[in-house]
This record gives sequence, structure tokens and C-alpha cells, in this order.
Amino acid sequence: MATIDLNSDLAEGYGDYRMGDNEAMLGIVSSVNVACGFHAGDPQIMAKTFAAAKSAGVAIGAHPGYPDLQGFGRRHIPYPPAEIERIVAYQIGAAMAVASLAGHKITHVKAHGALANLAADERQMADAVVHAAKAVAPDLVVLAIAGTEIEHAAERHGMRVAREIFADRAYTPQGRLVPRREPGAVIHDPEKAAARVLEMLDAGAIIAVDGTRVKVGIDSICVHGDTPGAVKLAETVRNALTRAGLTLRPFA
Amino acid sequence: MATIDLNSDLAEGYGDYRMGDNEAMLGIVSSVNVACGFHAGDPQIMAKTFAAAKSAGVAIGAHPGYPDLQGFGRRHIPYPPAEIERIVAYQIGAAMAVASLAGHKITHVKAHGALANLAADERQMADAVVHAAKAVAPDLVVLAIAGTEIEHAAERHGMRVAREIFADRAYTPQGRLVPRREPGAVIHDPEKAAARVLEMLDAGAIIAVDGTRVKVGIDSICVHGDTPGAVKLAETVRNALTRAGLTLRPFA
Amino acid sequence: MATIDLNSDLAEGYGDYRMGDNEAMLGIVSSVNVACGFHAGDPQIMAKTFAAAKSAGVAIGAHPGYPDLQGFGRRHIPYPPAEIERIVAYQIGAAMAVASLAGHKITHVKAHGALANLAADERQMADAVVHAAKAVAPDLVVLAIAGTEIEHAAERHGMRVAREIFADRAYTPQGRLVPRREPGAVIHDPEKAAARVLEMLDAGAIIAVDGTRVKVGIDSICVHGDTPGAVKLAETVRNALTRAGLTLRPFA
Amino acid sequence: MATIDLNSDLAEGYGDYRMGDNEAMLGIVSSVNVACGFHAGDPQIMAKTFAAAKSAGVAIGAHPGYPDLQGFGRRHIPYPPAEIERIVAYQIGAAMAVASLAGHKITHVKAHGALANLAADERQMADAVVHAAKAVAPDLVVLAIAGTEIEHAAERHGMRVAREIFADRAYTPQGRLVPRREPGAVIHDPEKAAARVLEMLDAGAIIAVDGTRVKVGIDSICVHGDTPGAVKLAETVRNALTRAGLTLRPFA
Repeated sequence: MATIDLNSDLAEGYGDYRMGDNEAMLGIVSSVNVACGFHAGDPQIMAKTFAAAKSAGVAIGAHPGYPDLQGFGRRHIPYPPAEIERIVAYQIGAAMAVASLAGHKITHVKAHGALANLAADERQMADAVVHAAKAVAPDLVVLAIAGTEIEHAAERHGMRVAREIFADRAYTPQGRLVPRREPGAVIHDPEKAAARVLEMLDAGAIIAVDGTRVKVGIDSICVHGDTPGAVKLAETVRNALTRAGLTLRPFA
Repeated sequence: MATIDLNSDLAEGYGDYRMGDNEAMLGIVSSVNVACGFHAGDPQIMAKTFAAAKSAGVAIGAHPGYPDLQGFGRRHIPYPPAEIERIVAYQIGAAMAVASLAGHKITHVKAHGALANLAADERQMADAVVHAAKAVAPDLVVLAIAGTEIEHAAERHGMRVAREIFADRAYTPQGRLVPRREPGAVIHDPEKAAARVLEMLDAGAIIAVDGTRVKVGIDSICVHGDTPGAVKLAETVRNALTRAGLTLRPFA
Repeated sequence: MATIDLNSDLAEGYGDYRMGDNEAMLGIVSSVNVACGFHAGDPQIMAKTFAAAKSAGVAIGAHPGYPDLQGFGRRHIPYPPAEIERIVAYQIGAAMAVASLAGHKITHVKAHGALANLAADERQMADAVVHAAKAVAPDLVVLAIAGTEIEHAAERHGMRVAREIFADRAYTPQGRLVPRREPGAVIHDPEKAAARVLEMLDAGAIIAVDGTRVKVGIDSICVHGDTPGAVKLAETVRNALTRAGLTLRPFA
Repeated sequence: MATIDLNSDLAEGYGDYRMGDNEAMLGIVSSVNVACGFHAGDPQIMAKTFAAAKSAGVAIGAHPGYPDLQGFGRRHIPYPPAEIERIVAYQIGAAMAVASLAGHKITHVKAHGALANLAADERQMADAVVHAAKAVAPDLVVLAIAGTEIEHAAERHGMRVAREIFADRAYTPQGRLVPRREPGAVIHDPEKAAARVLEMLDAGAIIAVDGTRVKVGIDSICVHGDTPGAVKLAETVRNALTRAGLTLRPFA
């Protein structure tokens, strides 16, 4: 029986701030990527999210980002690779420890925001992220943007890798995400998002805005949790996957 | 042959800021407690300190504190015990991960500043700190202020404990540290500090400002690294211990 | 014609985070208290809020709090009065400058959260807050919790003062706010809140949970903007004030 | 009688951290640029520095930088001009207020670190910095790196400008600072620094590493306060200026 993972970024709050409907998303997805306190998140929301994920039977991953609370980790801040390694290792370790306290276990790692974009594009930075993960917990699965440097780096370092496509983001003909600031970058129509996910799974390829197909492996579908309508979109994608005969299951 | 540990707080910098002479202290002590990014420290200085400690043959411990960079973790910030647990777990995990990346291994944990004082005085808070450590890494040694609630908590939770006295701090008749703001709280004279350390080791007791002796187990001597003259004081204490026939060795 | 001010805390966001419906509140109240970057707020949300308040004809005040983004300024952090003065002065000045840039003008100051509670209770801390405001801008109006030390301090320092009562918070027989953690501390029913505001205005007194009346001057009614249902409650209070023949007008 | 200003960056500490010997520098220079809490500085060190500068008869300026405590404001963080304006306005206002409280008065503004470099190179960013300053306090003097966009922007906006050269930094043939990471970027020899300052003043030009002369106006000499040997270098430059018959006086 064919399986697929559905993942979402969660716990992107800080102090009294919250972003997205974490509880609802935990009822829909099979894996969540949890902010680790640098671009968002703090020990309290992390612990609560891990405990809730455990109850919901949802797999958890560390979601390290730039130390940039003000910019939500979406701005590029220049760091040499050796410093990136330490930033990533720190956040993975913190997440693993808080997960232990909360009775759950981190099974994957996925880079966030501008750091993820950097690691998708630059081999040296992809190596830095993967090397940090391997040094801390070599049995983690690296959740990689399908077809990017981070996927290749995980393979080079002998780490397990899961490849994700985005349900709600448009792709360039190069198989990369259209930047958020460009029109049409984010897909808001749940049915449209669900249909193209199925189409991409069927094709075994990313389908770009101009129709270009970029062959990739697909182990997981990412739905965002912080946009308005996120829950509806995630549910619609989930239902479409199920109707297509796929079983939702964490890749890890 | 009798052994004793000599420990110091290290890596208490942030960004470009540094406090104390980390390099010199690594040549003197047998164990260091490394700030984990909340009251001080960041992934960069942590990694560099762990690597240097490895080279110097010095044992490393996580030194979690309040999330209070501005106040250096020396101000009491109210947290319920469940939140303290998460704060402590987060920092221990972060330190363990950065240590792995740097090729060394965290073998103990010691609370910092106002958090340490709280855990020394209040059973519930001591339990929170120890429970967090146990949940993350049950084989860590808890470095406890000798004779306080944190020592008892470690025993209750079945964790190994090492008990420390302070070379450069005066004690009350209750066996507790004289607050820093009071005159005579910090001992600056290296010879005086060294002499009273030997006296306390000989007595198996804390010796208070009024001469009161409070029986405690002593496994480690703490010398501070951030005060002027810290290196000289630490060297003097080390030499006194050696001359007294003790071998310096990490407790862990 | 009798006038009254209706005020609310605004701009309590940070980075991508938002709290409350700022836009809606600007259509209801006559004055807003704007977070200044320490417990919440940043230059971007401050500037946008000031510009929107200008357009809406709403008066603006600085709303300084403890430097505690994680705790939203609601935790007491120990500071001596001299340090409180500097923290308050800094935030007022920052708000004044950003307001100038945005084309509006700060006309009042109100302490936030735990700092406000401290300044309500302790004369020395009330003096610190007022002294800081006077040193920076002696023509500011101090928006004081009616009947507390901050009101008295403003009078002692010869600063203009406006006295506020809270529409949505219960009072103790001593005329102080029931702490948020206690049941019934926050009033969620808009009609109930509106009715007691009119009752208190009519009585010229705070009316406590046990019916005790504490005579105070009342120049402004505070409605919170960050609670669910805040907009509805604020509208209901506003309508009740208007129906009672009062004209909403900033006190400054 | 010819006068010149000698300026230095000060108050670049945070919490318990200190950088450079602020007290000594206040005895040497005529103007100081004070960190405003974003890249360094906090209300406490700002207030203490302003009071000490007042006592020492030293003029004070706001020294706004990127909100980047970890990177000390030396990393470029992408902001659109409108956001830069708000960041700069905020910091200037905060500094003005804390100065008022401390009994002194901000008379100039100088951008810090990566923000200063950006404003030196890009007209739009230079305009943003100057526009913010003008909106907050149009009578401030803009302390500009001589010959750069920030100087031109101040002129365009009708603000007074003082032009500085650096005593301890090497220049490119384009009249710009050699980046710190390059060899020879920082001049450590006090006598060499003093001699080239006199040479540049005499020439009315920046003298680059290859001997190129770039004509500029020079109103102030900048000496850094955070490098080892900074005090000695500053004293040596000061003495050289005095011996050359110049009187040290703030430009503002």
C-alpha cells in the first residue's frame, strides 16, 4: 500500500504570540517541523507542541532557522558555514532535549526560511546543515526540498533523506520556489493546491508555473500552517491524498 | 590517592563580548561549566570553548540559567516549575549537541546564577532542574552547591551528584552564599581563598563568616572566571590543592 | 458637554506577530497606548500604528514596559528605581521620535503590565516613572490607574494626569485590579462591562467585586485590545458612553 | 585659531558586558557616538555614559545601528529604506530621551557599522538615515564619513554635516575604508596613525593605501575605542593634533 507524509511547520509562536492553528494542524498532518527558539519558538511552546504531537500520533522534527526573531528567519543573515553548523546543532539538540522531557522523540530535521533557501542553493551550506545534524544525531532523517542541494548533501553524508514538495507554493522552471514577494507565489485555493499535489505525485515531478516538469523523488507534502486558510487547505490536500488511495504515514 | 575537582564557569560571552580569560582558566581547572545561550553564551563561543576544553583535557558541563541576557541570569524571574524544566532541558540539549559537533561530551550540569540560588533553596525548583536533566540525559552528574536542595533533589532522583564549595565566596552560618551585594561576599585575596579551601576540605565542612561549620560532602571547588584577578586566584587555589597532596581530576 | 476618553493598548506585536485587531480598535477609542519595543512593539509596527492613529484622529501615548519580550512585560523583573527611570525614558523617547517620523505626536504616557502594577503600588517606583517622563517631555499627560501611587506621583511632580478605570477588569475592595490569574479577574461580557463603567462614572468611584466604592477621579476608560471579543466589548462600552450623553475625546 | 573634533564610539556594552575603556576615552576625545541599544548599548550604560560625558565636557551623539546584538551591527541585514528610517528614528529618540534624563543633550548622529557602510555607499539608504534624523531633530549635526553618500544626503536635506576621517583605518583609492577582514585594514601603531592624520589634514584629503589622494572636507577625526591599544592611539593622535596647533572642540 502506497504511503505519503504530510508535513507542516508548527510552534512558530513566541511568548504569548501564536501563529497558525497548531491544534487543528496536528489533527491533519503526519509530521510537524517545530521551531527551535531562534527564528520562532521557545521552550514552552516547543514542549507543549511535542506533547500534543505525541498524543496525536504525529512525528516531530527540529526546524532550525537563523537567530532572527524580528525577521522570522526569512531574511538572509551572513554566516560562514562553520557558524551555520553550530547554530543548527544547537537548535537540534535543544529540540531533542525538550522532546525527551515532553515524552516524544525528534526523528527528522528540516531547515527553515532563509536558511532552508540557502541550503537548497549552496552546496557548502547544505553540507553545513547536514554535517551538524549528523554530528548531533546521525539517525535523523533530513527532510529536504526535493531536488536541491540539501537532498544531495544528505546523500553524500550517508543520512536518510525525505524529499518534500510544497502544496501551496508555485515553482519556477528550475524546480525552485517562486519567492513569496512575487505574485502567485502562494497558492490559496485548497482545491487547486490539492489537484496539483496529485498531479505532481503522479508525474514524479515538480510542475512549474510554465508547465515544466522537473523529475524529483517525493516522500512528503508540505502544507503551511501560518497562512489564513491553512487548515482548510491542509484538510483538502489530506482528503485528496486519501481519496487517491494513499495512506498518510510519517516518513521517519 | 585523593582527588578533587576544580571547576569554573566559562564561555560567559555573547557575540563579540567576552568575560574572563577562558583560555587561561582552561589551563588551571579540571571541569568547566559552559553558559548555554540564555543568560550568556551562543553557539559560537560554546563550540569554541568545548573544542578548547577537549584539547586541554578539561571536562565540560552545561550551565543553564534564566533567559536573561541583560541581567546575566542574576535576577530572579518568576517561572513555575514546569517552565523551569523546559528551560533547563532546552539548554542542556543545546549544549550536548554543540559539544558533539565540537568533538567533546557534556558530563555534568550545574545551574547558574539566580536559577542556582532558587534551586538551592526551594525543593520544588531543585526537583524541576534535576528532573529536566534526568529526562534529557540521566547519566549526567549534577554539580550541586554542597548542602542545598539541589543536592538532595539529585539524590531523590537517583542521579549522580558532585558537591561544590566556592573558593572565593563567603558563607552564612546557614551554609549559604553571602549575597554579592553585601560587603565581604566575594573573596579577592588568592592566598586567603586557597587557605580556607584547604581548611574546609580538612574540616569536611563549609566554614561560615562567623566560624560556624556546616558539615557537607565536597567533591569540587568552584573558582569564578569572570572577576578581576580570577586567573591568579584559581592558580593559587590549584597550587594549594596540589601541595596538599590532592590530584585534580574531574568528578565525572 | 461632558467628555470622556476611551483608551486601549495597541501595537502589541513584534516582527510578524500581531495581537488584537489594531485597525478595528482605532475606529472605536479616542486614545491608544503604544508598546515601545521592550515588552512588545518594534519600530515598524509603532510607525504604522502612529500613522493609522493620525488618520483615525486618535491620540497616542507611549506605553513603556519591562524589557521582557518573552513574558510580555507581565512578569516582575527586579530593577532599582534609577534603572526604571532610564528604561522608561528610553522608551518614551523612542516613541516620540517614531511618532515624529510618522507625522503624529505622543501626548501621554502610561506604564504597562508589571511595571504599571509596581508604579501603582510603590511610591518610589511611581516617582521613577513620572520623573523619567518629566525629564523627557514635561508636557506629557500621565495616564494613571485611578487612585494609585502613579496618580499621586504625577501630582507631586506637577505633571498633568488623567485617571483611568478598566472596563473589563474586576477590582478589589482596595480599588486595585484583581490579578489576572484569579477567577473573574477579566470581564468578558460586553454589556456587563458597559453597565459597570456607567455605574462607576455615575458614582465617581471604583466599584469592587464586593460592592465597595472607592472614590476616584475618572478621565478615561481602558478597554483591552488583546483579548478575544475585545472589539465587541470596546464598541459596546463606547456606545453605552455615547448613549449616556458623553462625548468621546482624548484627555490630552 | 583652527579647531578640530576628535570622536570615538562609546558605550558599546550590554548588561554586564563592556567594550573598550569608556572612562579613559572621555578624557581624550571631544565628541562621542553612543550605541543606542540595537547593536550594543542599553538604557543603563547609555545614561551613565551621557552623565560622564557631561562631566567631561564631551559632546554626545546617537550612534544607531542594525538591531543585531549578536553581530554587533557589523553584518548587513536587509531592510527596505522605510524600515531603516524607523529603526534610526527610534534609536535617536531613545538616545535623546536618556540624555535628557542624564542632564546632557544629543547634538549629532552617526550611523554605526554595516548601516554606516550602507549609508556611505547607497544614496537611497543615506537619504533614509538623514530623513529619519531630520524628522526627529532637524538641528542635529550628521557626522558623515567624509566624501560618501551620507555627506551628500545631509546636504540635500539641509542638515548640518561634519565630515570625519578615520585615524586607525586604511583607505582604498576610492576613498573608502578597507574592509576589516583584509590585512592592514586597521592601523595599530599610534605614531603611524597620528602622522597620517596630520598628513591628511594638511592635504585636505584622504590618503589611500596606494598613495591616492581623495579631496574631502575634514571636521573630525575618528578613533576607535574598542580595539586593544585604543586609548594609547587616541592619546597619541590627540597630542599630535595639539602639537600641530589645533584646538580640540566638538563640531556641534
